[in-house]
This record gives sequence, C-alpha cells and structure tokens, in this order.
Amino acid sequence: MPDFKVHTSDSRSYARTGKLTLKNGTIETPVFMPVGTYGAVRGISSLELAGLDSEIMLANTYHLFSRAGIELIEKMGGLHKFVSWNRPILTDSGGYQIFSLAADRKITEAGVTFKSKIQGDKLYLSPEIVIDLQEKFGSDVMMVLDELPASTASTEEVHSALKRTTRWAERARKARSRKDLALFPIIQGGANDELRQLSIKEILQLEEHSDPWEGIAIGGLSVGEVKEKFVSTLYGMRNQLPTDRPRYLMGVGTPRDLVFAIGCGVDMFDCVLPSRNGRHGIVMTTKGRINIFNAKNVQDAGPIDETCLCPVCKTYSRAFLRHMFRVEDTLAGRLCTMHNIAYFLQLMKTIRGHIENGSFVEFSNEFIHAPEHTFLGGEKGFAQYPETYL
Amino acid sequence: MPDFKVHTSDSRSYARTGKLTLKNGTIETPVFMPVGTYGAVRGISSLELAGLDSEIMLANTYHLFSRAGIELIEKMGGLHKFVSWNRPILTDSGGYQIFSLAADRKITEAGVTFKSKIQGDKLYLSPEIVIDLQEKFGSDVMMVLDELPASTASTEEVHSALKRTTRWAERARKARSRKDLALFPIIQGGANDELRQLSIKEILQLEEHSDPWEGIAIGGLSVGEVKEKFVSTLYGMRNQLPTDRPRYLMGVGTPRDLVFAIGCGVDMFDCVLPSRNGRHGIVMTTKGRINIFNAKNVQDAGPIDETCLCPVCKTYSRAFLRHMFRVEDTLAGRLCTMHNIAYFLQLMKTIRGHIENGSFVEFSNEFIHAPEHTFLGGEKGFAQYPETYL
Repeated sequence: MPDFKVHTSDSRSYARTGKLTLKNGTIETPVFMPVGTYGAVRGISSLELAGLDSEIMLANTYHLFSRAGIELIEKMGGLHKFVSWNRPILTDSGGYQIFSLAADRKITEAGVTFKSKIQGDKLYLSPEIVIDLQEKFGSDVMMVLDELPASTASTEEVHSALKRTTRWAERARKARSRKDLALFPIIQGGANDELRQLSIKEILQLEEHSDPWEGIAIGGLSVGEVKEKFVSTLYGMRNQLPTDRPRYLMGVGTPRDLVFAIGCGVDMFDCVLPSRNGRHGIVMTTKGRINIFNAKNVQDAGPIDETCLCPVCKTYSRAFLRHMFRVEDTLAGRLCTMHNIAYFLQLMKTIRGHIENGSFVEFSNEFIHAPEHTFLGGEKGFAQYPETYL
Repeated sequence: MPDFKVHTSDSRSYARTGKLTLKNGTIETPVFMPVGTYGAVRGISSLELAGLDSEIMLANTYHLFSRAGIELIEKMGGLHKFVSWNRPILTDSGGYQIFSLAADRKITEAGVTFKSKIQGDKLYLSPEIVIDLQEKFGSDVMMVLDELPASTASTEEVHSALKRTTRWAERARKARSRKDLALFPIIQGGANDELRQLSIKEILQLEEHSDPWEGIAIGGLSVGEVKEKFVSTLYGMRNQLPTDRPRYLMGVGTPRDLVFAIGCGVDMFDCVLPSRNGRHGIVMTTKGRINIFNAKNVQDAGPIDETCLCPVCKTYSRAFLRHMFRVEDTLAGRLCTMHNIAYFLQLMKTIRGHIENGSFVEFSNEFIHAPEHTFLGGEKGFAQYPETYL
C-alpha cells in the first residue's frame, strides 16, 4: 500500500521533506521525475537513469497505449519488465494529450477519441479505460483522466473542464481495483483562484467517507499562461491542500519554478526540459543556462559545470561536447541530457538539505532572484514573486 | 616504444595470439578495433566503450583534421584527452578518403587536396602532414598516407597507386620524429597477387638497414571486389609478411571475413559494421544476423542473443528494442550498436581461446561454412574457401 511520511516541515514556508513509499520503492521528496514518455527518457537507457540516481520515472499512458499497445505490455509482464526499470513509475493519464493534441481529438462526457497521427486509426480513452490500462501497466502512481483547458479558454470553459475533471475523477475512483498502486486526482481551474478553490473542494469531497487519495496533483499550469499567473495561482493554493499527502505539480518546469513551487508545498515534479534542452546543447549549471554551441566553448577544456558530480562533467569537456554536436553525433545531445537530469536531481537534493537545515527560505530567495536563473528554460514574461511564503 | 610479442602460433594455420604494447596500453591480438571516426564510436561514449572491454579505438586523421582541427586537439592536450579515452588509439591516415571521396579530391605526387563538403574550403594532406598530425594527436598507431585505387581500376592504375604508396611510405618514415608511437605502412596491389608481392617487397625494402616498421597493414581489400578475389588475395599473402610484427587488415569486415583472415595470419581489424548495422536494427548473434524489426520480435521477451554477456543482452528484450526503434528513440540504435561491438569483441576472445587450445582450424571450418554466417553483413557474391590454411 502506498504511504507518505513527512519528515521535516519548514517553519517559514510550506516546503517539506518526506518519503513516499510506492509498490516498487521509496522515493525522497521533493523529487524530480525524468520523463520517459514511451518508457525511456529519450536517448537514455534505464541503466543510465538509475546510475544518475533517479528514484522514479514518468511515462505516458496515451503514448504507450498508442505505440506499444496494452497486449504487448501485458505479455511482457507489465510496464516495469517491458522497459527494464525496477524502480517506481508514474504514468500520466493522457489528459495532457487532450490539451496538446486538441486538433486531433473529440471529447464527450463519456471519454475522448483521438485520431492517431501514426496509423490513422482511432484511439478511445475514458476515465475507466485509463485506470484499467494503468493497472495493467502496474504503474506505481496512476493519474485520473482530466480535461485540461487551453490557457486562452474563457472562465466558463475552464469551469466546465474543472467540473468534468471532478466527474471523471469520481468515475476513476470507482473503476479502480488495485490498492497497491497509488491514484492521484488532478486539480484544475486555470489561473483563476476561485475555480482552483472549487476544484480542490470537489476533489476532496470525493474522498469523504471513503479511502483518501494517495496524493493530489495540480494540473493546468505552465501551459502557456504568463509567469505572473503561474506564480499567483500556485501561491494561492499553497495552504489549500491536505498536508498528509504528496502534491504533484504536473509538467513544471524551470529550476526557478521548482524552487518557488517547493516553497508553496509541492513535493513532486516532472518536466521534459532536461531532455528537450539537452538534445539541443542547452545545459543547466549552477551559474545559469549555457549553450554549448557558443563560440567561447570551442576550446574550453572544462566540464559543463565545475561543481557537478555527474559522469558527464567528470569525463567530458565542453570542447568535446561541442565537437560532437558539430559532427551530428547523437552522443552529444545524450550526454547533455544526462547532465541536465543530474542537475535537476542534484538541485532537489540541495533543496532537501536546506529544508532539513531550516535554510530553505534563504536559499529560495537567493535562487529565485539570481540573475543567472531568470531565463532558465525560456520563460514567458516576468513575475513579481511574493515577499514571503507564509 | 611499441612492442609485439607472439604468444601462441597455430600449427595448422597462420593464426596466432599475441600482445601488442603501445604507448597507452597493451592489447591482446587478434583484436577488433571499433571505429570512432571523429573520436567516438557513433552514439557511444568512451566510458561505454571501455565498459564493453574494448582495448583500442580507431579514429580518422582526415575527419578529425577537417572537423575539429589540429589547433583544438593540440590545445586540449592531444587526441586522448580531447575525447576522454585513455587506452590506445589507431588513426587512419586519410588514405581511405582518397578512395571514398574520389569525386572531391585532386591527387598529385606531392599530396592530395580535398574540397571540404562542409565549409567549401580546401584541405591538403601530404605524407609528411599526416605524420605531423598524428604525432600531434599522439596516436598510438599512426598510418602512412596511401593511395587506394578503386576495385574497378586497371592493372596499370593499381600498379601506379602501389608505387606511389611505397614512395609516400618512404616519405612518411623520414618525416616521423616520435618513436614512442607506432607507424604502420600499407600494402596495396588490389586483387592482383603479383602486385601484392611487389608491394610487400617494396615496403619491406624501406626498412632495410634501418628501424623496422612496428606493424604492417593490408589496404585495398573489401572495397567492392567480389568475395572470391578477397579470399584469394588474402590467402596469397598469408605467408608473405614478417611474423614478428602485427598485421592489420584495414576496414574488414564481416565475422566470417575476420575468422578467415585470422587463419591467414591477420592480427588487427576495424570495421564500421557494428555501428552502421546497429543503428538500423541489424544485430549479430551466435545464431546469425537478425533484424530487430522482424515481426517475430514484436513480443519476444528474450535478449538479442541468449549467450551474450553484454549489458544490452543482460537487460533489454528484443520487444523493447523494437518498440524503441518504432518510436524513433536513438536509444534503440545505440543499444544495438553496443551489442554488435560486444559481439565482435567476444568473437575475438573466443578465437584467441581456440588458437591457444589448438582448435582454431576446427572452429574456423565450422564458422565459415555455417549457413547462418553466410550473409552476415551483406556480402557480395559467394566464395570458395581454401581447404586448408597451410
């Protein structure tokens, strides 16, 4: 049975450290979860991901269903065996694809039909089907199917998507049969504080007189809204969620976003930034973001980051990585991806240390306002961060 | 100083085991050298190549000169430091590019001018320049610049290229200043036994009354000629080369080619087959060549090769590898490349064992005539193999 224990709660913010025990292992929170959409982080083997000390991997129900199929994954003995990863896996439900593949899907109260881009045939998902798929995968954390509105949606549309997400979460709860796998509902409500409160209220009502959700996710942020909205919406939820369950902020984000969100009480993150940036030679360092292609790296015998302990920084120079990009060897993007994942994992470790030591707020203030972190990841717009977390 | 010691000479063939000591380490022969044209095997890190127990890597002088430049490699402290590989490196001279880039180069007695495909500027190589470059690289084994005629060349053209290769080898000897790095000349002569004898005679005359070559290479085979010619030419040279130096058959080849060549006394090999095939899902196994895309691998939970000890076979299923190819993750081609390299290295180890045990000829006969090895690597034409090696 999934279990979450808070270890240390910061007294000057909502940050906390904890241990989340799932079917295939225990992970320390706050945690960054590398994204392995099809069962592997692009270009990175499960052996390498484990070597970087990643304790959990994210995969995607929609993409696995559409490209591998449930019959194959079942025959292989479940998702962990299929992809040779024996640590926890969290699977996103396919709700994000309702948003990202908006042009190719039709949504009704019953579920959503996708026109597959690959084979032309159709793919149908309902709240019940995604639970069934994830139980067959054996996902350590299953996500409910949700409706994620565009950042340009009207208040009525956001409200309507929120209400449907609640109804779908209720159907997901009923469809669930395995208690050894965690199930997280998703809070929607766009950048509207009142709708966020409503979503939280409705999702928590579903667990009254019944088993509690094993965790709660925040969806619908970092989907194109301006940074002020992201900051204010998250800040508005910082004291609204139960403290005894892990909180997962979906698809976020830049290092600065993560630091701020942890101050607002978030425990779990996933983002494609390390691999998407890494493939293009953009690497995160403790001194900010670097483009390996920059002319000043041509003869730089030093590593990506002098302070990084990852195997890439211990072995390869910026000059070599740049050379490998120039000759179009996929090795270059892979090594940069590995470093970026290591950066995020080390950042989480650093933050856990600060929470334990009571120095998180000082760390957060310095990190968020450091000029070198301002444009990590290519953010849209500037944000005024709150003076305090409390 | 480079040193070669024969350990065991087979009494029923020209096969032998030995140890070749180079500046950066000692390698056991017969040896397969993975090809890292630009300083890395495509997609594979030096850490991974070392993890597969490869004792030496091949790189290419022309490509390194054209894409990285000598100034950069010198500033990085030489080729080994630049690419983070501390074991031996053999660099090909660029002679092969005289053949493969024939449309884009102009050859004179002085040297060869290439029209660079990348930047449009010209690149000039001479016998002296390639020695200077390789000494600056710090290549454990340097190759002389040679002229490699096309397999369609006339006898006169082959003869002329052979004579120039001798003159260029002489110039390379004179240009050489470092004795801690080995220098290998290259035997040419196409598929013509008499010209091969002439080339051997001329190359060996160059070392009379002087220091001996540290090894001798056989070039100009496996360049498009029919398999009978390859077999008969190599067989014709089996007892013509000095026994106290390593013999290197350049750019060869399929597993069957390697077994046969070892019986003819060859000690060193390089070939792009493992990476080129691997990237396309074609993998070598002890039961023959397999295409991972074949429908029968869709639900195959077994490894590429049940008997293989490589990390890919110990971890991943054919079904997973096929899935990764389908979703176009470069991980798939890389894992197949790693397995193929491991296959070649394990084949060499197996062969060294048979030579030590006196069972090489039995192994060779069985391997060469096994139907599953007939088309490993996509060979052109059939060949009648000699009844015995002696």
